Amino acid sequence: MQMNDSVVLTLEEAGALVSSILGKAGFSEGHVRTLTWLMVSGERDGCAAHGLYRTLVCVHSLRSGKVVGDAEPEVHDQAPAIVRVDARGGYSLLAFEAGLPLLAEKARSQGLAAMAINRCVHFSALWPEIERLTDMGLVALACNPSHAWVAPAGGRVPLLGTNPIAFGWPRTGAPPYVFDFATSAVARGEIELRRRAGESIPEGWGIDAQGNPTTDPAKVLDEGAMLTFGGYKGSALSTMIELIAGPLIGDLTSLESMEYDAGAGASPYHGELVLALDPQRFLGDRAQEHLARAEAFLNAFDGTGARLPSQRRYQARERSLAEGVRIPAALHADLVALLE
Amino acid sequence: MQMNDSVVLTLEEAGALVSSILGKAGFSEGHVRTLTWLMVSGERDGCAAHGLYRTLVCVHSLRSGKVVGDAEPEVHDQAPAIVRVDARGGYSLLAFEAGLPLLAEKARSQGLAAMAINRCVHFSALWPEIERLTDMGLVALACNPSHAWVAPAGGRVPLLGTNPIAFGWPRTGAPPYVFDFATSAVARGEIELRRRAGESIPEGWGIDAQGNPTTDPAKVLDEGAMLTFGGYKGSALSTMIELIAGPLIGDLTSLESMEYDAGAGASPYHGELVLALDPQRFLGDRAQEHLARAEAFLNAFDGTGARLPSQRRYQARERSLAEGVRIPAALHADLVALLE
Repeated sequence: MQMNDSVVLTLEEAGALVSSILGKAGFSEGHVRTLTWLMVSGERDGCAAHGLYRTLVCVHSLRSGKVVGDAEPEVHDQAPAIVRVDARGGYSLLAFEAGLPLLAEKARSQGLAAMAINRCVHFSALWPEIERLTDMGLVALACNPSHAWVAPAGGRVPLLGTNPIAFGWPRTGAPPYVFDFATSAVARGEIELRRRAGESIPEGWGIDAQGNPTTDPAKVLDEGAMLTFGGYKGSALSTMIELIAGPLIGDLTSLESMEYDAGAGASPYHGELVLALDPQRFLGDRAQEHLARAEAFLNAFDGTGARLPSQRRYQARERSLAEGVRIPAALHADLVALLE
Repeated sequence: MQMNDSVVLTLEEAGALVSSILGKAGFSEGHVRTLTWLMVSGERDGCAAHGLYRTLVCVHSLRSGKVVGDAEPEVHDQAPAIVRVDARGGYSLLAFEAGLPLLAEKARSQGLAAMAINRCVHFSALWPEIERLTDMGLVALACNPSHAWVAPAGGRVPLLGTNPIAFGWPRTGAPPYVFDFATSAVARGEIELRRRAGESIPEGWGIDAQGNPTTDPAKVLDEGAMLTFGGYKGSALSTMIELIAGPLIGDLTSLESMEYDAGAGASPYHGELVLALDPQRFLGDRAQEHLARAEAFLNAFDGTGARLPSQRRYQARERSLAEGVRIPAALHADLVALLE
């Protein structure tokens, strides 16, 4: 259904379109399925940057040889509480899905478990993976390095990635408590948008080559570095993510990932760490009582002016389920062109 | 050795003084040993607020019935990867020490493990516990709720604690990478100091009763709320800590801990979550190679202007080991008076 310069698609229509494009481009069935789910979920939740638009990026990455379109993930039972999945150069999500049953089984039998995903190409938000775990009643944490664009607090040189961290807590009778944010002050794309628009950026987003605060997006992007959120605390957290989702799982730091990229500007190629904790094993017989206390705590946010994270996403989701998603007509045309 | 209005003690002298006071006050041998180690470590590392001064606080808490001085922690083997320790109303550190061998054994056999400490009285920094784990070659994470003094981002009502989070990464040939910080913008004590000095506070530390930014410390402490570091991101992290170190381990949120305190102003009574991850199990044969990459990453901070966290603490430690610790003569007199 076309309306002026936008197109409205049901989620089914959106999924069918994305699947056809990805299949035609040469992705294997598993990657088509997981990528389609990911991009439709992003569009459904109002995250256009992680929505249907990404189909174009995925096809471009496949054509330029930056991702293996038919990579079959290999799942290794590394230790009683550790699953390791070798993504073999494919997108991360199929590797996540391949390891998920064993991760959940280990979390339930051991109490908590980790999944190390290696050698994956990563572009996606982490919340779709987090929600897969909260849907199973598990508490989840995930993080990954990216490319070294961010200077640690006090430093002049980019050593850290934008390093997202995401967390999920399953709720009863409400969507899960989920946050998913970059440990950089803002997304790199936000600074790029300001440059394109000829606008300045607020102080605190980045520094110039000498390490001084700057409001010039070009100086941050081309010569200087981005900054973390929350000063030295955010910087410390981002450093932790480099360590636990880099060397701890035998995979690249953001600096190494950037060297590997060698200026190609592709999605980071690296690893991801996922933790799953089972409240039933932590709490035994008293799980229900204590999870009800968590509900009371989260419900206390209502009416105080505070918003739980992801609320806007859940509202967009409800709307999209009822009304479908609306994308720019130009994007729709670009997508359809890939089918010709 | 007395010098003007300060007193210098060797670490042995400091330890002997603290031990005598705590023993005389009625703490059992295990608590005397762990509290002494904690406070001497704090003083040694230049953290006066967690140093010998705390001896006075511990004795006061014992006398006013807010802590059980001879509580014997009970260690439970909750699940293959979970240790639970009931502190039974005693200080947290003895419970931590009681559970530590089983936590380390589980981390080594399963790959990672969690320790839930319940019903403990907490006043200490988390880094001394973190360093116990990094000394064993384990990666460590710890966090706990506190008292509900902090409003979530956008809110007017305090629902969160100052909720510290600490992390440690063992290094070869260098002290561990350790951070330990409150998720509040600053420590509550910092705002109290400003009030006593009749000074204002910077914007961003707290809000008044209407939820508006204020620079008046009294308005923050008495009517309004403190704020988290890092805006909505810090607020989300702090909320995570409430959940995973509260209901997940069957213990109190900061709000519940404050209700339990009922205005007495005692140290929070609650739980603590500790995670330990074994790089050897994550990495197997290739551990050395990947840990060397972590060293390269951390060494890259040198000369960029960035400082790794805890460096000041390690410098103070070296100085104290060589020269002893210097405490105010008035504090020394207060301490000695407790022996009379």
